[in-house]
Amino acid sequence: MDNVDTSFIPDLPTGGGLAAYRKRANFDWKRLRLIFETEQALRIKYNVWRRLESDPLFAHASRTLPMDEQKRLAAMQVNRMKHLELVPKEIENLNFSEKTKYLMHINEALNSYSPSLSVKIALGVGLFNNAIRAMGTEKHTKYIDAAWNREVITCLAVTEVSHGSNTKRIRTTATYDPSSQEFVINTPDFEAAKCWVGNLGKMATVAMTFANLITADGENHGLHGFLIPIRDPKTLIPYPGVLVGDIGEKSGLNGIDNGFVVFTNYRIPRDNHLNRTGNVTPDGVYESVFTDPGQALGAALESFSAGRIGIMQESANTLCSAAVIAVRYAAVRKQFGPEREGEEMPIIEYQLHQYRIFPYLAAACVQKIAVEELTNTYLQIIARSQADSNGFDILTQNAAEIHAIISASKPRITWSARDAIQETREACGGHGYLRASKLGQMRSDHDPLCTYEGDNNVLGQQASNWLLRQWGAKELESPIGSVTFLQRRETLLQLQFPQLLRQSPLESWEFALSCYEWLLCHLMSHTTAHITHQLAAGVHRFEARNNSQVSGARELSLAYAEYFALKSFVTHVRQLSLEESYARVLRVLYDVYAMWLLESHMTTFYVGGFAVGGDFAAAVQHRLLQSCAQLKDMAVSVADAIAPPDFALNSVIARADGLLYENLQNEFMTNEGAFQRPSWWRDVIIPQGQEKSKL
Amino acid sequence: MDNVDTSFIPDLPTGGGLAAYRKRANFDWKRLRLIFETEQALRIKYNVWRRLESDPLFAHASRTLPMDEQKRLAAMQVNRMKHLELVPKEIENLNFSEKTKYLMHINEALNSYSPSLSVKIALGVGLFNNAIRAMGTEKHTKYIDAAWNREVITCLAVTEVSHGSNTKRIRTTATYDPSSQEFVINTPDFEAAKCWVGNLGKMATVAMTFANLITADGENHGLHGFLIPIRDPKTLIPYPGVLVGDIGEKSGLNGIDNGFVVFTNYRIPRDNHLNRTGNVTPDGVYESVFTDPGQALGAALESFSAGRIGIMQESANTLCSAAVIAVRYAAVRKQFGPEREGEEMPIIEYQLHQYRIFPYLAAACVQKIAVEELTNTYLQIIARSQADSNGFDILTQNAAEIHAIISASKPRITWSARDAIQETREACGGHGYLRASKLGQMRSDHDPLCTYEGDNNVLGQQASNWLLRQWGAKELESPIGSVTFLQRRETLLQLQFPQLLRQSPLESWEFALSCYEWLLCHLMSHTTAHITHQLAAGVHRFEARNNSQVSGARELSLAYAEYFALKSFVTHVRQLSLEESYARVLRVLYDVYAMWLLESHMTTFYVGGFAVGGDFAAAVQHRLLQSCAQLKDMAVSVADAIAPPDFALNSVIARADGLLYENLQNEFMTNEGAFQRPSWWRDVIIPQGQEKSKL
Ligand SMILES: Cc1cc2nc3c(=O)[nH]c(=O)nc-3n(C[C@H](O)[C@H](O)[C@H](O)COP(=O)(O)OP(=O)(O)OC[C@H]3O[C@@H](n4cnc5c(N)ncnc54)[C@H](O)[C@@H]3O)c2cc1C
Ligand SMILES: Cc1cc2nc3c(=O)[nH]c(=O)nc-3n(C[C@H](O)[C@H](O)[C@H](O)COP(=O)(O)OP(=O)(O)OC[C@H]3O[C@@H](n4cnc5c(N)ncnc54)[C@H](O)[C@@H]3O)c2cc1C
Repeated sequence: MDNVDTSFIPDLPTGGGLAAYRKRANFDWKRLRLIFETEQALRIKYNVWRRLESDPLFAHASRTLPMDEQKRLAAMQVNRMKHLELVPKEIENLNFSEKTKYLMHINEALNSYSPSLSVKIALGVGLFNNAIRAMGTEKHTKYIDAAWNREVITCLAVTEVSHGSNTKRIRTTATYDPSSQEFVINTPDFEAAKCWVGNLGKMATVAMTFANLITADGENHGLHGFLIPIRDPKTLIPYPGVLVGDIGEKSGLNGIDNGFVVFTNYRIPRDNHLNRTGNVTPDGVYESVFTDPGQALGAALESFSAGRIGIMQESANTLCSAAVIAVRYAAVRKQFGPEREGEEMPIIEYQLHQYRIFPYLAAACVQKIAVEELTNTYLQIIARSQADSNGFDILTQNAAEIHAIISASKPRITWSARDAIQETREACGGHGYLRASKLGQMRSDHDPLCTYEGDNNVLGQQASNWLLRQWGAKELESPIGSVTFLQRRETLLQLQFPQLLRQSPLESWEFALSCYEWLLCHLMSHTTAHITHQLAAGVHRFEARNNSQVSGARELSLAYAEYFALKSFVTHVRQLSLEESYARVLRVLYDVYAMWLLESHMTTFYVGGFAVGGDFAAAVQHRLLQSCAQLKDMAVSVADAIAPPDFALNSVIARADGLLYENLQNEFMTNEGAFQRPSWWRDVIIPQGQEKSKL
Repeated sequence: MDNVDTSFIPDLPTGGGLAAYRKRANFDWKRLRLIFETEQALRIKYNVWRRLESDPLFAHASRTLPMDEQKRLAAMQVNRMKHLELVPKEIENLNFSEKTKYLMHINEALNSYSPSLSVKIALGVGLFNNAIRAMGTEKHTKYIDAAWNREVITCLAVTEVSHGSNTKRIRTTATYDPSSQEFVINTPDFEAAKCWVGNLGKMATVAMTFANLITADGENHGLHGFLIPIRDPKTLIPYPGVLVGDIGEKSGLNGIDNGFVVFTNYRIPRDNHLNRTGNVTPDGVYESVFTDPGQALGAALESFSAGRIGIMQESANTLCSAAVIAVRYAAVRKQFGPEREGEEMPIIEYQLHQYRIFPYLAAACVQKIAVEELTNTYLQIIARSQADSNGFDILTQNAAEIHAIISASKPRITWSARDAIQETREACGGHGYLRASKLGQMRSDHDPLCTYEGDNNVLGQQASNWLLRQWGAKELESPIGSVTFLQRRETLLQLQFPQLLRQSPLESWEFALSCYEWLLCHLMSHTTAHITHQLAAGVHRFEARNNSQVSGARELSLAYAEYFALKSFVTHVRQLSLEESYARVLRVLYDVYAMWLLESHMTTFYVGGFAVGGDFAAAVQHRLLQSCAQLKDMAVSVADAIAPPDFALNSVIARADGLLYENLQNEFMTNEGAFQRPSWWRDVIIPQGQEKSKL
């Protein structure tokens, strides 16, 4: 680890209100940064940030822009991407995983600057192209190039007004007309209008759309993808038969033009059907095409999961940003103190404050590594399945498990980021409510991640369903190894705290992991019993499952995600050969996060009999608070190691210079019209009745 | 209850997507409404809503207005108040409590229409006048009239850039100059600039300001209130020596002009000192004036607590609004179902969904009544102390306890409302992210209530400090009776679930209350032991207290607020003579809320030995889920009974007509510029390389 190159990481300002705590850390934040992220990832990101910062088009607005202006700006920024040359030519020589990761890193850096921008790009290029690869055939690859070159402006239209999570019940139809060899697209009624489609409101020229494929005989062959031209790319005027509009203002992400569209007998060429998995012959016969099922499945898998992995990466960064703001503010802000007239204490010194914000700092660090590990696992599977002649086998073995991991982890991390932002806002008091703190916008922009690419509560059910199947299965199918501990289920279910303490003391990495293994076994066993009991009583399986969410399945799926993240972190860290001071930081972060998570499941540990009496809860809380106290003097440097540069973080209360009050002063004094008398002053004063001396 | 007059409550639309559930309720929502609120309160509120609705100045904007326009509009609306004649002349004949409640009801109705408006009015009139009464003397009453007549535009300037919660360390100075009989106001440096002051940014002509009173001999006599002229009321131009500006955009409440101000050797007349509790003679001698301490203390108390009670009322309404949106949406929205091709189910039918949103519906109903009870208690004390010659005694007896109740309850209810809004947003899926759902704005406007009028975490500590004092005290001082159960502490600490079940079965009102009494005793005993232990080890009391927040004090203060609310609800409901169907609704709501709250303390029940094994947790959860199931068919009508009219609720996804999709369609189709090609379309298209057929 000695010869890591940190020279490409820009220095932070010295002095200022953060200096005192920075001095107390006995490690180099830059080297820690290179533990949280690879050198390559960091180089790519700093490059993106540098380029954006030096281009005036990306200068931050000093106030919320009008909706239309936000959309214009985001669109202009998307178009500027090419000129910024963020993606070098050489990327074509990289293998699949390397290339994907390159693009992911760019996306992360863009996202931390502006979520509207990164989502627009993803919809316009990444996700669209994934979908084409997943569902299209040879003849559709030209769209991939066209999207790259922005000859087409694209979007993905799945959701309808009355159908989101239950995509199977989408009602848009594509009826094949053999006479003209066209599909006729129809929206049966407004409830089936496509809506919420990003890029569609003002700009998209083509929409990748899910619709029911109906042949001339009236038979419905289920959902298929279609490329539907929306607007003339030369004029952006919609084609006849396409009623397309913008859904209007949202709570955030207003740089994106989310739209709705109603199709009325709108004809598209037969070739616009994405026909990888099912094809219609020119004369109208539907045929299932499974010549290459492995690749088809792989691509489909990739298409659905890559988006969610992107969300997890973004959310890990959002967690980082929120934690950085909370920590930097807390280290500079002083309030109260032991003596009436004496020095006040930085609020970071208060145990309660540590307990409120450090778990998010720790979560950010652990998840940063865990998400990276999950990404690698995911990409390896895809790559192996592409390379191997047995690709199909590799995929089906892994597909269900990786889907479960992602379905559990996306809710876990998006909710953590959501909570981190809110806690940070409150932890920064009134100043956290300033627009310039960035927290309000961060909250609004992050919020929908709990809903799109799969509603968290619905996704969670998919994960728990898989887990419960594993519990019930005769043979374990866990090629990724996320539930291999189930082989020890009998022993695990008997485990109790005192016995665990003897096997794995509190100080061991295994302690928390073993607690989780008991917890997961208990929840699976408990939930299974609950469902079985209902089935026996004649309850419909659908209902039995629904009625087992609150009492077990929901917690199960969250606990699974947490276990997977903690385990990935431990596995990763153990592979590193670290100097003592770095090992210690990672250990403290792990303890804070793990103990905090265990605390959130405390009831189950007691109810399930793992713990009796006060010892377990006391031990966990004691270690949590102790670890928080240890983290306190390192926290600022840890935050430095995960902070985006000031340009991207863009929070006036958390600049790296630690000059909180100077920066606030500057903000107050220079905000637009700060000292201006309102132009409408005459409208609001009340004519003064009588002269009163300075009253 | 038979002869209640509900005729003044406007009917709701019939038909629509809510009709099915409305039919299933076996009670009249209007009569239920009159259980949640008094007839007088409702008449006042409907009157306010009606008047606002019929005045075009109060028409809702269809998009977020520019910041400056938001400020202008709110200011214009404040001025229009007089013309609306919301406050009748007769109010002067009412007694103190009645009058205050009248104004509180108006505030509530205004707040549910626009928080910016109601806060501006509160700062401009209510809170300002309270403060004058609390700290001023005879000569200052003219300001009260002037504020009513808007001859002065007022604000309250306490917070400084570097001091919020710790007001004692405010640094603005007011130095008396006997030669001119003036106070010289100074802001020592930018960190001591007043900031976040509502109304100050653009408009205030006078600021009620806290500053350190310093006499010519240099002695600092501590904080006092001063009326400091800021701007010329005829021109709104600031006076020389006053550098005043607007702090800029915030995450919400942008109708309010929050400002900052720096004073430089700014001279104000001696009479502008609010000299009730301390006076400076013309020649500069400071004298403490406690001629009428009872009234002084009473007014001071009123001044500080009334604002927090206002916040609780507003938050209870916000809870209602969020719950109403969640319930109405869930009753109309369908997604998934047991059969592949069959009917889909309204999401309100899913147990998990019920578990997510019903506790907030129940919280809204219980808190609505509990806050009303607390308000009455508070006003009675103030009124009695004003009427009684022993006013001082009455007050000091009650002051500490009511302060503790309020300090615990304000955090509890503002946090509940915060969580309710977020859960509702997610429960409404993507459509909940539409600006027109109102949820985004509700979240942003509600958020700072967790911080202003006392940061929640700091307030909570004040409540727990009082509780711990009671625990340690030889004689209980609980004139309001919030902790009389402490007399049974020995027995309570021994209580366990099986034994409680025999005394008070799960079906009794007492069950939850007794659980809470055990919980509070346990937390007080535990936290006291923790502090004592530290003190014995030589830890400073300040630190010992800080280090007891996480392990007990924090939960103690929340539990105390919950207990007080549940108990108030039970006491109130028991006094009513209700028909069976109404009694049943209240009972179900109580059970949902109480069981849900108990669940949140489950760990402590186990760790503290109240429960062993799975029975208690299972019983509580079972009753919670069962009560949710019972609430399901009543929920829409319960929501009707707490919903503000559509005009005030203003959520396109939760109109009373239940026409979700028709309303969404209208919203999508008519939002400003929905179908317009952007004016900047030329800037964002990429010149098309070659002609491609409809590609
Ligand atoms: C900013 C934004 C951008 C978007 N961009 C796109 C886009 O580009 N293209 C596109 O096609 N779509 C897009 N969407 C739509 C998005 O994909 C959907 O919002 C998402 O799939 C959730 O569906 P829904 O909103 O219909 O919620 P619903 O499925 O209606 O769910 C509503 C609520 O019911 C609950 N629920 C549903 N079923 C169950 C059940 N069985 N048990 C318990 N609870 C249940 C859910 O948890 C949720 O809380 C976007 C949405 C947003 C907010
Ligand atoms: C919208 C808005 C309107 C406002 N209007 C006005 C107004 O009109 N007039 C006015 O004077 N002020 C106003 N304020 C300011 C408001 O009163 C303060 O924000 C509030 O008092 C909290 O103080 P602070 O922001 O300085 O937070 P701080 O006191 O600095 O607290 C910061 C954080 O530290 C934590 N903390 C502090 N002390 C401790 C401790 N001992 N132990 C543990 N944790 C601790 C707190 O919990 C908080 O999370 C307004 C604020 C807002 C947001």
